[in-house]
Amino acid sequence: MQQRISLVTLAVADLDRSQKFYERLGWTRSLKAAQGVAFFQCGGMALALWPRDDMAKDAGVEIGDAAPAMQPVSFAQNLASRAEVDAMMAEAERAGAPIVKRAHETFYGGYAGYFADPDGFLWEIAWNPGFAIDEDGSITIPD
Amino acid sequence: MQQRISLVTLAVADLDRSQKFYERLGWTRSLKAAQGVAFFQCGGMALALWPRDDMAKDAGVEIGDAAPAMQPVSFAQNLASRAEVDAMMAEAERAGAPIVKRAHETFYGGYAGYFADPDGFLWEIAWNPGFAIDEDGSITIPD
Repeated sequence: MQQRISLVTLAVADLDRSQKFYERLGWTRSLKAAQGVAFFQCGGMALALWPRDDMAKDAGVEIGDAAPAMQPVSFAQNLASRAEVDAMMAEAERAGAPIVKRAHETFYGGYAGYFADPDGFLWEIAWNPGFAIDEDGSITIPD
Repeated sequence: MQQRISLVTLAVADLDRSQKFYERLGWTRSLKAAQGVAFFQCGGMALALWPRDDMAKDAGVEIGDAAPAMQPVSFAQNLASRAEVDAMMAEAERAGAPIVKRAHETFYGGYAGYFADPDGFLWEIAWNPGFAIDEDGSITIPD
């Protein structure tokens, strides 16, 4: 199996609510003609938002709900400095995101904070001096 | 906020079990010196596996568990043909992955199947003629 993710799809309770949340963060949809699903291009992959029931029906399974706790997956956006982390966390707060943990010094010598999306998916905004960031935003985990 | 995911971190019940599962699929860890977490480089981003309790403690939250149902997030790997989808699904089955839905013609004119990882995270293996795949595996969602 190739070591690659093409799409990350979140099962959401309310597509309109979730789409508007990511748009308030400044994200722009692709495939705007698509009904009932929202795609956001993220570099060479994409994030999709899909109503829970539709996603469960497509896979032919029951999809569990972790609410009211946080979901068992988190997404990180790594940035190049502590100042960028502070600015991004302030932006998330202005967009109405619940701040789960304010930016702080981390155990690995970095600096990071957490906010949550409307379904309880965690976003960590991080500066990690051990993970190189390319100009296009790609990160490289060392061997 | 930049439209970008640096890391996807899965809260797992048993790190060793999950790590071995992805290794059976042919994946290779980065940062092998890291204890208590497994990183897999995926193009310009990475997938991380982290024990649920450690992840919850780091964020300072309770993380819910969707088990025994599937988790509310899925990952897709898009491939270039139906034959590649069939080969990948067979590989997943040989690696011991529960086959959630055998590859089939999809509503959007593609061909896809689902398997699950040890914690119930869904993987969709898909051929979608509407999403272009670059040589490096990047996909592009049309406008």
